[in-house]
Amino acid sequence: MRTFEAKISFDKFPIIIGINIFDNLKAFLENYSKKNIFIICDKYFKDNINFYTKSLSFIYEYKSLFIDGGLESKTIESYKLVIKELVNENISRDGIIIAIGGGVIGDLSAFVASTYQRGIDLIHIPTTTTAMIDSSIGGKTGINHLDQVNLIGSYHNPKAIFMDLRLLDSLNDRDFYSGICEAIKMSVTSDKEMFLKFLEIDKLVAQRNLDTLEEIIYWSVLTKLKHVSNDYKEKSMRLILNYGHTFGQAIETYYGLYQEKLKHGEAISLGISIASKISHLLFNNEESKNLLMKTKEIVNKYNLPDNFHKLNTSDIPSIKPLIKNLLNDKKRISEGNRFIICESIGNAKIKLLSDENILIKGFEYIY
Amino acid sequence: MRTFEAKISFDKFPIIIGINIFDNLKAFLENYSKKNIFIICDKYFKDNINFYTKSLSFIYEYKSLFIDGGLESKTIESYKLVIKELVNENISRDGIIIAIGGGVIGDLSAFVASTYQRGIDLIHIPTTTTAMIDSSIGGKTGINHLDQVNLIGSYHNPKAIFMDLRLLDSLNDRDFYSGICEAIKMSVTSDKEMFLKFLEIDKLVAQRNLDTLEEIIYWSVLTKLKHVSNDYKEKSMRLILNYGHTFGQAIETYYGLYQEKLKHGEAISLGISIASKISHLLFNNEESKNLLMKTKEIVNKYNLPDNFHKLNTSDIPSIKPLIKNLLNDKKRISEGNRFIICESIGNAKIKLLSDENILIKGFEYIY
Repeated sequence: MRTFEAKISFDKFPIIIGINIFDNLKAFLENYSKKNIFIICDKYFKDNINFYTKSLSFIYEYKSLFIDGGLESKTIESYKLVIKELVNENISRDGIIIAIGGGVIGDLSAFVASTYQRGIDLIHIPTTTTAMIDSSIGGKTGINHLDQVNLIGSYHNPKAIFMDLRLLDSLNDRDFYSGICEAIKMSVTSDKEMFLKFLEIDKLVAQRNLDTLEEIIYWSVLTKLKHVSNDYKEKSMRLILNYGHTFGQAIETYYGLYQEKLKHGEAISLGISIASKISHLLFNNEESKNLLMKTKEIVNKYNLPDNFHKLNTSDIPSIKPLIKNLLNDKKRISEGNRFIICESIGNAKIKLLSDENILIKGFEYIY
Repeated sequence: MRTFEAKISFDKFPIIIGINIFDNLKAFLENYSKKNIFIICDKYFKDNINFYTKSLSFIYEYKSLFIDGGLESKTIESYKLVIKELVNENISRDGIIIAIGGGVIGDLSAFVASTYQRGIDLIHIPTTTTAMIDSSIGGKTGINHLDQVNLIGSYHNPKAIFMDLRLLDSLNDRDFYSGICEAIKMSVTSDKEMFLKFLEIDKLVAQRNLDTLEEIIYWSVLTKLKHVSNDYKEKSMRLILNYGHTFGQAIETYYGLYQEKLKHGEAISLGISIASKISHLLFNNEESKNLLMKTKEIVNKYNLPDNFHKLNTSDIPSIKPLIKNLLNDKKRISEGNRFIICESIGNAKIKLLSDENILIKGFEYIY
């Protein structure tokens, strides 16, 4: 078990990673009146209390709402539904919301917590690799609206995050590795040593070895905190986290929000493959070649796609709409023609790229 | 003209009070790309550019949305409408919203600004006494939902506030004095000298003398900042601002949100009348008697009601539903049986009041 204090902007809160960690949660909840505690939980866990998820059986002791954990729930309609339940259940502003689930439940619940009665307390219990490694860290909340990802949202840190590693056994392989991809991405940009370790521990990860998962998640949380803590509201340091995302999102936009063809982590896997190619085209030296080759090796070891033909679909876009999506990406536009690329493994840079040709060559790499 | 820097929590921003102040705004807006500036304006000003409002003619140079300034606009539907317009107009996260209007426009626009793309910049141009004296100061944003005032909201300070005193001429007398009531209330709780001044300057206020208005608004802003700045997220110091509100809101709840019988400031006027009565019942000395008598005098001088028969309605509630509303007030409940009362003019206290009898006597005073 690892327990440590996160500091983001002016907020400080504990993060607990391990198994059998919910005794700490119960102690924490003694600061709140029981009738003022409200759980928002992925409905998967409503009917799936087994050996791996039995630590969650405390949820039945509290007021709760079970919600589908799919992207369809990350909407203003779900937001209104949760608000209505909070009112029905008389949750007051000195209450607390406990969000149990993946990124969708976490982002939605955190947005509710940041706006209900001008903000109430929140605890995250992420249950997926994506949520433990990425989305529960950094204070971002959000819901999708008008077909735009996180068009509405805020920054609202939790009072604590509890990560129970046994819950990861509830994930299928695609979701499991999709989340691991965010950790691999951070190692590419920021930590060569960890990257090389990832190349060695793939079998242990596949077995979902608890010690290995604890190490990966602990490292991921610390690394993400390093990127966001000095820089709460998205400036240059935080931008490094977008490695692979600009390209990945151009592909995600093609497939649309609500589908099973491409998961977010799979898009990022394609994105970091493109980014490694573009990096090598730019620097064209031994180190950039190493980045290119090792990126291919690592995504393959972690069952992640390095080209379109490995996706769960025969629907493969041509390059043209992808480049169009890339150039229309509102986030990218407001940041200028900036892209995150790597000079070598563990060494990311922000670079202006205005040559469309090099972008096309990057995309060609994944066909 | 008065220009000074407000400090609330970790935010600092300028407040400019006077006439002919919008040259400063234009200089300020040079930090933004023109296509990224979006005005949300009370539709009253769309067709009412005259001698008093001509300073607002700059609004036609920018992207804008005109909205009804009534309470009907403080809803999630209006929120969605504004978000849609921001998307249609391609306002990016490094853009800015300028809110021009009273409390409704200000609260709605600020909530939009705090949540659109996880928060964008905001300028307040309050155009009513209520907004200049009270609602634009303190960072509170909010929309009404499920018949609850500000059920959804956040804290989001503007980058600047511009208060053009000439715009107050757009107000009818009821709205004008309704806002002044918030200033009177603060003088009762916190500043005897200002209270006594209010008793002398009523004629100048009635004439809407610009120097007098500037002095009142400058004093109000400083006084409100004093109450909120050490205490951004509503603790004891901020509670003092609720003087008269607990009782006033019990009356407002009776009449409902959307009506013309009772304006917010009129409810506060009745509320501070009740509070002065209860204060005198509790302390029963010369000073509390003075508070009681002078409160009656001041609300009368400012055309504010000190009893139900002075309201714009013949619909007068019995005491029973008012006491019931008082006891059901969620905000009050979460704060316990605490009420703000005054020992003397300028000297407010938080007091536990559990004797229902004294509350009834307080309400009887305004029949």
